[in-house]
Amino acid sequence: MRATYLFGAGDIRVMDAPDPMIVEPTDAIVRVTRACICGSDLHPYHSQPAGTEGKTIGHELIGVVEEIGAEVVTVRPGDFVISPFVFSDGTCPFCREGLQTSCEHGGFWNSARLGTGGAQAEAARIPLADGTLVKVPGTVDESLYAGLLTLSDVYGTGWHAALRAGVTTGDTVAVIGDGAVGLLAVLSAKQLGAEQIILMGRHRVRTDLGCEFGATDVVAERGEEGIARVMDLTGGQGVPRVLEAVGHLPAYEQAVGIVRPGGVIARVGVPQYDQAELGWPVFGKNATITGGPAPVRAYIEQLLPAVLDGTVKPGRVFDRELGLEDIPAGYAAMNDRTALKVMIRP
Amino acid sequence: MRATYLFGAGDIRVMDAPDPMIVEPTDAIVRVTRACICGSDLHPYHSQPAGTEGKTIGHELIGVVEEIGAEVVTVRPGDFVISPFVFSDGTCPFCREGLQTSCEHGGFWNSARLGTGGAQAEAARIPLADGTLVKVPGTVDESLYAGLLTLSDVYGTGWHAALRAGVTTGDTVAVIGDGAVGLLAVLSAKQLGAEQIILMGRHRVRTDLGCEFGATDVVAERGEEGIARVMDLTGGQGVPRVLEAVGHLPAYEQAVGIVRPGGVIARVGVPQYDQAELGWPVFGKNATITGGPAPVRAYIEQLLPAVLDGTVKPGRVFDRELGLEDIPAGYAAMNDRTALKVMIRP
Repeated sequence: MRATYLFGAGDIRVMDAPDPMIVEPTDAIVRVTRACICGSDLHPYHSQPAGTEGKTIGHELIGVVEEIGAEVVTVRPGDFVISPFVFSDGTCPFCREGLQTSCEHGGFWNSARLGTGGAQAEAARIPLADGTLVKVPGTVDESLYAGLLTLSDVYGTGWHAALRAGVTTGDTVAVIGDGAVGLLAVLSAKQLGAEQIILMGRHRVRTDLGCEFGATDVVAERGEEGIARVMDLTGGQGVPRVLEAVGHLPAYEQAVGIVRPGGVIARVGVPQYDQAELGWPVFGKNATITGGPAPVRAYIEQLLPAVLDGTVKPGRVFDRELGLEDIPAGYAAMNDRTALKVMIRP
Repeated sequence: MRATYLFGAGDIRVMDAPDPMIVEPTDAIVRVTRACICGSDLHPYHSQPAGTEGKTIGHELIGVVEEIGAEVVTVRPGDFVISPFVFSDGTCPFCREGLQTSCEHGGFWNSARLGTGGAQAEAARIPLADGTLVKVPGTVDESLYAGLLTLSDVYGTGWHAALRAGVTTGDTVAVIGDGAVGLLAVLSAKQLGAEQIILMGRHRVRTDLGCEFGATDVVAERGEEGIARVMDLTGGQGVPRVLEAVGHLPAYEQAVGIVRPGGVIARVGVPQYDQAELGWPVFGKNATITGGPAPVRAYIEQLLPAVLDGTVKPGRVFDRELGLEDIPAGYAAMNDRTALKVMIRP
């Protein structure tokens, strides 16, 4: 098959690769219908040292089950499935609590331990298929692909931010970041009943989509100026629920600056820092810092019906579709921000 | 009157001072029955630069109202009162939400803005008396003084840690720190129904009291060794509710090391650091960091009855009582850990 490999910063290639095979009786092989490029793929795309061996990449897919291991019971060949960005057994204490990202036996894509490749490929081996894959009922029209694909990561991640922040009816919410996750955090906050949704971002095309998703205010300013704008918009008190969907330090600092005393900062952007402010500016306000990698597996069944019936359209975050061979152009477009999120058609 | 002043690190003196007077019509003057020394008083005691002018100190007291301003209606001269370690108006949005530490008009003791002195004195001016003071009903026997005095700070602070961490029936909890706040966090966790309470501390006399308050396990080890012990005690999963009652960086790092995926770290020790770990070790586990200065005013009415009827005895954290003139000896004893908490009798 053909699959994507990252050889170093900026050096992404589509190459011949061995077809994935059933290794464990709990595996499934899924033929990829659509994959995509994630904002978090850009981190190694920026920083991976040049090496002799390429690394597989990609962690979002929808597709059709091609083959299953002897112990797999919840999906069968021919089923159309969504695969979350984390594998999980569905039975350990953490999975039962809905924290599949901490599954005792699961793990991430492109894992040496699990022996998995990446999702930006023609097919993929899915370990722990029963705990991981979610079957989409009925016939799946191509027009639904984009929406379903967001359930593998970005929609569930935006939803996680809003849930962890405790967004509820009538709330004031700020979303930091106008990437796909930030925009879907806006959508999620709106679905959970938020009344005022302040979107902090400065890419007009993206924030316009954010407004369609439910943002009531857009703040393009950053730093002290951005904080001052948000304080103005909240009667000087700050924002009770801040969803941080970037992962860079200035975004966190922005969150600390605007959070209301007693409020919550929910982080879902993978932090690109180790140390950050946790002294009086956080403590003095009794602010809460929460969030982490989203257990999207826990949310798919809940979010799926409204995607299938078109009530919500999270797939609008995809603004470009490319063939697998064009992946290098897709990375370049996301990197220079001419594309918001790129869908890949193997 | 006589009052306590800190002139620099280790230089604490009891001196003549002007009697406090009503300045605002919302003030009350309280004659101090008992004050005490707080672990947080040791921070300036360690670090305050030597200066020509002394600074007042102390923020915990019980006493008798001597005089009230024209607008004060909830307390009268002769009332026995508890004063929390923060002044608050009781009417602003934050006070109404039970976050009096963020009161829009309140503030801390020894405040230039509020024009207040410290509580380690014969008398004190209490601004915003209606929002701040809590009247103790009935005749107050001297045997109750210690318990009532803990309601001005350390008991409410331990309670805040347990509440913010979400401690509930059957929970496993770890308390980091065997100072007065840590021990009362143990007591609070026990009251809230925790089943396993792991106390991390290495002062035997203190951890023994912690066991009487409800600790089921004591871990004296620190760092990696301490983390390993706690993991052993929790079946390798870590602790879902960690109450951090120290404020130094190693205590926070301990908390990060032992918190269970999806768990909560509630900090009530004033952080003596600005930056701390907020990268993958926190994010990857979906851990929550919460806490801050405790709005003890919100908890006094709830905690008072069991103190008055002797059901709980938080006053046991006081292991020494000294006259006001002996304050320097009290600071020295707390500093070299020969005393757990010193009560002051003006």
